[in-house]
Amino acid sequence: MTQLKNDIAMIGLGVMGKSLALNLLDNGFNVAGFDLNTDNIDRASSEAKLLNESFTGKGKFTQGASLEHVLQGLAKPRVIALSVPAGKPVDIVVNSLLDAGLEKDDIVIDTGNSLWTDTEAREVNYKGKLRFFSTAVSGGEEGARVGPALMASGDQSAWQYVKPMWEAIAAKVDANGLPVGQFEAGEACAAYVGPSGTGHYVKMVHNGIEYADMQLICEVYQFMRDVLDMPAQEIGQVFEQWNNGVLNSYLMEISADILQQEDVVTGKPFVEVVLDKAGQKGTGLWTAVNSLQEGCPTPTIAQAVYARAMSGQKSQRIQGSQLLKGNIADASQLDKTEVISELHDALYCAKLSVYAQGFDLLKTASDKEGWNLDFTQIAKIWRAGCIIRAAFLQGITSAYQQNGELANLLFDEAFIKQVEERELAWRIAVANSALYGVPMPGISSALSYFDSLRCEVLPANLLQAQRDYFGSHTYSRVDRDEAEKFHVTWSQSPRTEVKVNA
Amino acid sequence: MTQLKNDIAMIGLGVMGKSLALNLLDNGFNVAGFDLNTDNIDRASSEAKLLNESFTGKGKFTQGASLEHVLQGLAKPRVIALSVPAGKPVDIVVNSLLDAGLEKDDIVIDTGNSLWTDTEAREVNYKGKLRFFSTAVSGGEEGARVGPALMASGDQSAWQYVKPMWEAIAAKVDANGLPVGQFEAGEACAAYVGPSGTGHYVKMVHNGIEYADMQLICEVYQFMRDVLDMPAQEIGQVFEQWNNGVLNSYLMEISADILQQEDVVTGKPFVEVVLDKAGQKGTGLWTAVNSLQEGCPTPTIAQAVYARAMSGQKSQRIQGSQLLKGNIADASQLDKTEVISELHDALYCAKLSVYAQGFDLLKTASDKEGWNLDFTQIAKIWRAGCIIRAAFLQGITSAYQQNGELANLLFDEAFIKQVEERELAWRIAVANSALYGVPMPGISSALSYFDSLRCEVLPANLLQAQRDYFGSHTYSRVDRDEAEKFHVTWSQSPRTEVKVNA
Repeated sequence: MTQLKNDIAMIGLGVMGKSLALNLLDNGFNVAGFDLNTDNIDRASSEAKLLNESFTGKGKFTQGASLEHVLQGLAKPRVIALSVPAGKPVDIVVNSLLDAGLEKDDIVIDTGNSLWTDTEAREVNYKGKLRFFSTAVSGGEEGARVGPALMASGDQSAWQYVKPMWEAIAAKVDANGLPVGQFEAGEACAAYVGPSGTGHYVKMVHNGIEYADMQLICEVYQFMRDVLDMPAQEIGQVFEQWNNGVLNSYLMEISADILQQEDVVTGKPFVEVVLDKAGQKGTGLWTAVNSLQEGCPTPTIAQAVYARAMSGQKSQRIQGSQLLKGNIADASQLDKTEVISELHDALYCAKLSVYAQGFDLLKTASDKEGWNLDFTQIAKIWRAGCIIRAAFLQGITSAYQQNGELANLLFDEAFIKQVEERELAWRIAVANSALYGVPMPGISSALSYFDSLRCEVLPANLLQAQRDYFGSHTYSRVDRDEAEKFHVTWSQSPRTEVKVNA
Repeated sequence: MTQLKNDIAMIGLGVMGKSLALNLLDNGFNVAGFDLNTDNIDRASSEAKLLNESFTGKGKFTQGASLEHVLQGLAKPRVIALSVPAGKPVDIVVNSLLDAGLEKDDIVIDTGNSLWTDTEAREVNYKGKLRFFSTAVSGGEEGARVGPALMASGDQSAWQYVKPMWEAIAAKVDANGLPVGQFEAGEACAAYVGPSGTGHYVKMVHNGIEYADMQLICEVYQFMRDVLDMPAQEIGQVFEQWNNGVLNSYLMEISADILQQEDVVTGKPFVEVVLDKAGQKGTGLWTAVNSLQEGCPTPTIAQAVYARAMSGQKSQRIQGSQLLKGNIADASQLDKTEVISELHDALYCAKLSVYAQGFDLLKTASDKEGWNLDFTQIAKIWRAGCIIRAAFLQGITSAYQQNGELANLLFDEAFIKQVEERELAWRIAVANSALYGVPMPGISSALSYFDSLRCEVLPANLLQAQRDYFGSHTYSRVDRDEAEKFHVTWSQSPRTEVKVNA
């Protein structure tokens, strides 16, 4: 670190870029900041000023007057982080940087939510002109400010320059895998996960899991709200208790907080004044689409994406609520304490099923693309900083530490035991969802996934026979080599079986 | 129709192309056939010869020696149908036809399973060089041979030339909407559905529904097989009975037939020797991906695609079946007759839910793209010829005839009544699936869809609050205009609500 030159530039000082910049300053790095929106530069600059006035040892912030100015103030090789919207803006900025004098050895790091295939293409595209590197950031605004989870990928030589900064600003965990405070020592949730594009891929799957995780919590909330008639405050208290046990996680913590929040305008429970339409920025959708294309089942992630879409169809639902009264079972005899306990267990098992789906997708892609992803490392960096951070990621870490070749997370001995103890409650919760008419697309698809996974013979034998019947698509026999294909002459009499040459 | 010239050329004489060609000959049209594989030409030629020897009034088949030869023998404007694999082969053949002397007024019809966006692009691409037209064909080999469902789209002027041939070869229905024999009079299941690409789009959604339809039947089969311990033959008999009622459909009919089929090698029930791995050619996957991208929920179609993927993970499932023993409810007290009746009702309701999802996707795409699709017409052409043909498509036809603007198929009065009568049984079947550990990803997701649709307030209020908490994604209030966005300053004390400018 030189005193004359800046360590890193941050291009794009919106919510995420500004937070990362301040985090870097916190850790003593000098940062040059630039944004086309000068309001954003001013805001970052004044917050940096406050930092320098209140604390010693913080890095200095330089307002970039132009990209040329930013580049001139950087130590070589220059390290430039981008925090701009995914898509075209990334290439526009990179090309502007090249015009401004970027050199072959300089490092450009995309910290946005880019589609991983775009990142792959960029690494190829910019080869020889600069070192294109990527680091996916999870943790939202707060995480970026005080410690995000960082998934880096791309040029190995670039990683050596970036590593000290990323490890300094990342979230940390203690020896038990639990998050520690911003300036406390611990293992950093930042790692080089693999070749070009993999950081964004891993982050994409992280977000798919996040979508599902949020959906599962919402389903439990809805059952308590609509079947058990519990007020939001009380549900929040239950979630707060749950957050002290196996379900301990950031999303459980904030859900408990939100449910106990009062609306400042009306004094009603805050959640009751929020419109039930959920937005999305696309990463969950990308995960679902990718899993379909890879042929790797992640049904609960897709259900979570559809649930958001369904929330958007509000006018259709209002009409539906009037026309479809529902012929449902009588819930008056339900034992509230018991149901709450079942929902707890269902939520935990479903969550495990979701992580199993997500890690299976990572494994499928890693095997196909030859990425050699390290699942222990991925579980480790998700233990703090990111939105899906949860106590049980320590269990996932242990599972992969014991067996890096685990075919499915649900096959880990400790998890098998944990599920066995809660499985019947999970089943009852899903059954109740069906009987009492409160949808649980996430929790029930997680159970279907689990039951399909433990099913040696699925009914796909009938399905493949149907395909052979109407489309001559052939089938394999259980008593012959799978590669041998057969067809029945369904429309002839008598029918015969013919062997088909591939 | 001239006696000297051919009415149409068929390029590609594989299973589908040959069957369509013979169907055209059956109806008195003269066909020129060409295939790069001369075996295919010879096979089509000898079957055409048999046809001419056995029956009078059949069209003549001309073996094309080359594409030039094919073009020379056609009446002008020439009508050339392609039955080649989707993707690059279509463009290769079209370009070869242009080289061979195709003219501006000539009509090329893609009858393959092309991706609808490829078809759109082709119409633009070939404009001025030829009239590119498309017709999606459903019905498999048998349908193509004796009467498929035909979904045509593209150039309106081309449709006038094609229409008489397509209406002649298409499947027909009687006044009650039921299929009639090949040469019987009736309403043809062939129509011009809309502008370029729409025929393939409608067919894509048809196939998505088909995937789900097949999956639903398989789930019922599995429950009978694994929980009720019913032999295949007996299940087949139940399906045969069901096929006489509201579930009457081609897929139910062939499933009943398949389940009662004996394996010619071992004498065992045929389905028991078929390996439980289902293949797929991609159209179901396209539908699921498209629905995710359109933000239109078709969860059961996605579940059907995932179920096929899960069937492919056989080695993981074998391991799963050994490790995950399942903590499930005791099924010994189940009343078999009652359970079978519940499965029947569940299958019918789930099927309706699937069609509602599929038609909602058609409506979403039609509104977005300005296609002005006619849902009555689509339901009509699916009544015969195609794989999903079913008695209840007459009900769907009526529903849209009564109200073309129906917001959701499940809102039709007749269907509301039909579901109400069966709804509780549907719920019990899904509950049983969860309790007894036999997965029903399709039937249960269909129920979740139904329950979400009749839910005025989904738990997406909590979800959107979570998004605002960690990502400042803002929310709308139920007591303000939806366009106004708000944010809570979650990390400040005391928290306040701020209005955010869009």
